[in-house]
Amino acid sequence: MSDAMVWLNGRLVAERDASISILDRGFTLADGVFETMRVKDGQPVWLDDHLARLREGALVLGIPLPFDEAAIGQGLAHLIIAQGAVEASLRLTLTRGPSRTRGLWPPAQPMTPTLLATLSPLATITRPPLTLVIAKSVRRNEHSPLSRIKSLNYGDSIIARREAEARGAGDCLLMNGAGRVACSSVGNVFVRMRGEWHTPPITDGILAGIARRHLIPVLGVCETPIEVRDLAHVEAMFLANSLGLSVVGAVEGQTLDDISDWLTGSVFKN
Amino acid sequence: MSDAMVWLNGRLVAERDASISILDRGFTLADGVFETMRVKDGQPVWLDDHLARLREGALVLGIPLPFDEAAIGQGLAHLIIAQGAVEASLRLTLTRGPSRTRGLWPPAQPMTPTLLATLSPLATITRPPLTLVIAKSVRRNEHSPLSRIKSLNYGDSIIARREAEARGAGDCLLMNGAGRVACSSVGNVFVRMRGEWHTPPITDGILAGIARRHLIPVLGVCETPIEVRDLAHVEAMFLANSLGLSVVGAVEGQTLDDISDWLTGSVFKN
Repeated sequence: MSDAMVWLNGRLVAERDASISILDRGFTLADGVFETMRVKDGQPVWLDDHLARLREGALVLGIPLPFDEAAIGQGLAHLIIAQGAVEASLRLTLTRGPSRTRGLWPPAQPMTPTLLATLSPLATITRPPLTLVIAKSVRRNEHSPLSRIKSLNYGDSIIARREAEARGAGDCLLMNGAGRVACSSVGNVFVRMRGEWHTPPITDGILAGIARRHLIPVLGVCETPIEVRDLAHVEAMFLANSLGLSVVGAVEGQTLDDISDWLTGSVFKN
Repeated sequence: MSDAMVWLNGRLVAERDASISILDRGFTLADGVFETMRVKDGQPVWLDDHLARLREGALVLGIPLPFDEAAIGQGLAHLIIAQGAVEASLRLTLTRGPSRTRGLWPPAQPMTPTLLATLSPLATITRPPLTLVIAKSVRRNEHSPLSRIKSLNYGDSIIARREAEARGAGDCLLMNGAGRVACSSVGNVFVRMRGEWHTPPITDGILAGIARRHLIPVLGVCETPIEVRDLAHVEAMFLANSLGLSVVGAVEGQTLDDISDWLTGSVFKN
C-alpha cells in the first residue's frame, strides 16, 4: 500500500504526500460528512445515490461542495483507475475545511472545504451469522439531524462497538431514546416477523441508508417502529449497509433462522 | 501567526510543519477527546482538572494517553513559553491516531494516539448579555456517554449554533430527549429562580464542565432538573465554560436581570 493514491481537493496525490491541516474542522469538531461506497468491477456502486446523500448531509451542516457531482464522479474514476482497483471500499469525506479562528462558529469568512477520497480493501462479506446484543452503554438520538445523515460524528457507534467486543458479540443493536430498535453500529436493521420484513422508520433516529432504500421495494419491507419487546417475535434478521449484508444468527441469546443462502442467493448479489 | 508553534506528539513544531494523517481516526470518525483551557498570566487555569477530564474521556473511548500528566503539563508549558503567550486559549486534542484498517473497529493492532496542543487568541470576554433561543433542530442525547465527556463529536452543537445564527440569537439552549433544559452549544447553564441558583444535573446529558464544578460550591448552586416550563420563573441566567462566563439577557424574548456587574465583580474574575 506504500504506492497508494488518494484524491484530495481535486488532485490525485500519493497517500504519503497527503495530509490534513491541524486546523481542519473535520478533525477539531467532526464538522463534516462522508460516504462509503462499494467498488465492484472497477465501478462505484450506487454512485449517484451516494453523491446525492453527501450533498444533502452537507446542506444540513451548511458546507458547500467544492465540485459538482460530475467532477467528483470523474475524480473518483481517476482514483480507481490509478489504483487499479476492481473490488474495494471507497470513502469520500467532506469537511468545512481549516479554520484559523477558534470556536464552534467562527465569524463569516471564506472557507475552503476539504474533499478526500480513499480506497481500502473490501473486507470479505461472507462470514458466519453475527451475534448481537442490545447496547446498554449508548442509545441513538432520534432528536438529532445527525442521526439521519452520514456525519463524521461516529463516537456513539464506536462506544457501541466497544461494548459488543467487551460482551463477546459481533455488534450491538442500538435503541433510540424512546426505547425502540434503531440500527446496529454500522448498518440498518431488517427483521422478519410473521413472514413479513420490517425496518425502523427514519424518524426513529437512523441513517437514511442507501442499501436500505434499494432493499425496501425489492423485499416489500414495511417501515415499522420496532419495540424491544417485539424482538421476541423476530424470526430472522439481517443488517445492511453499502458494503454488503450481514445475517444475524442470534440477538441476546435468542437464535434466529439462518437466512444466509436465501439472502445471498436471491436478494442481493454480494 | 505565521511563526505559530504547536505541540504535536511530544515535540514543539512550527504550525506550518504540523499536519494530521488522512488516516487519523480523529478525522475519519471523531474518535477522540479534547480540552480547551484558559491561559492566564502565562499559566493554564485548572490544568489538573483538565488533564484529569482528558484522561477520563479517553478511558470512556479506550484511548491510552501517550504521556503522563506531568509530561503533558511540561509540554504545554514549553508551548506557552515558545509562543510568549500571556492570555490565550489553549486546546489539547487526543485521538486514537492513524489506522490503516478501514472500519469502525479495526482488529487489535498497535495504535499510536495523536496528541496536539494549539494556542489561539482569547476572545474578549466582556460583551453585551446574550440573547438565547431554545433549539428546535436538535436535542442533547442524555443516553450517550459522549454528552458527559468532551469528545470530538461536536456536530449537534454546530447545528444548534447554526440555528441560533439563522434566528438572530447569540446561542441556543438545548433540551435533552426528555424535554429538559441541558446546556447551550458551548457552555453549562446556570439559572436563578426565587433567589437560588440551579444548574441541570450531569445525568440530563450535559458536559461535566470544569467551570461548573468550581462554581457550584462558590455560588451554592443546586443541581436540579430544569423543565422548559420552569424557564418562565427564571430571573437571571448565565453560561459558563473554561474560557469564561456569559450573562444571558433574554431567552425566547423573555428579558432577564442583567447580572453582568455582580457576576464579573464578585464571583469569578474574568
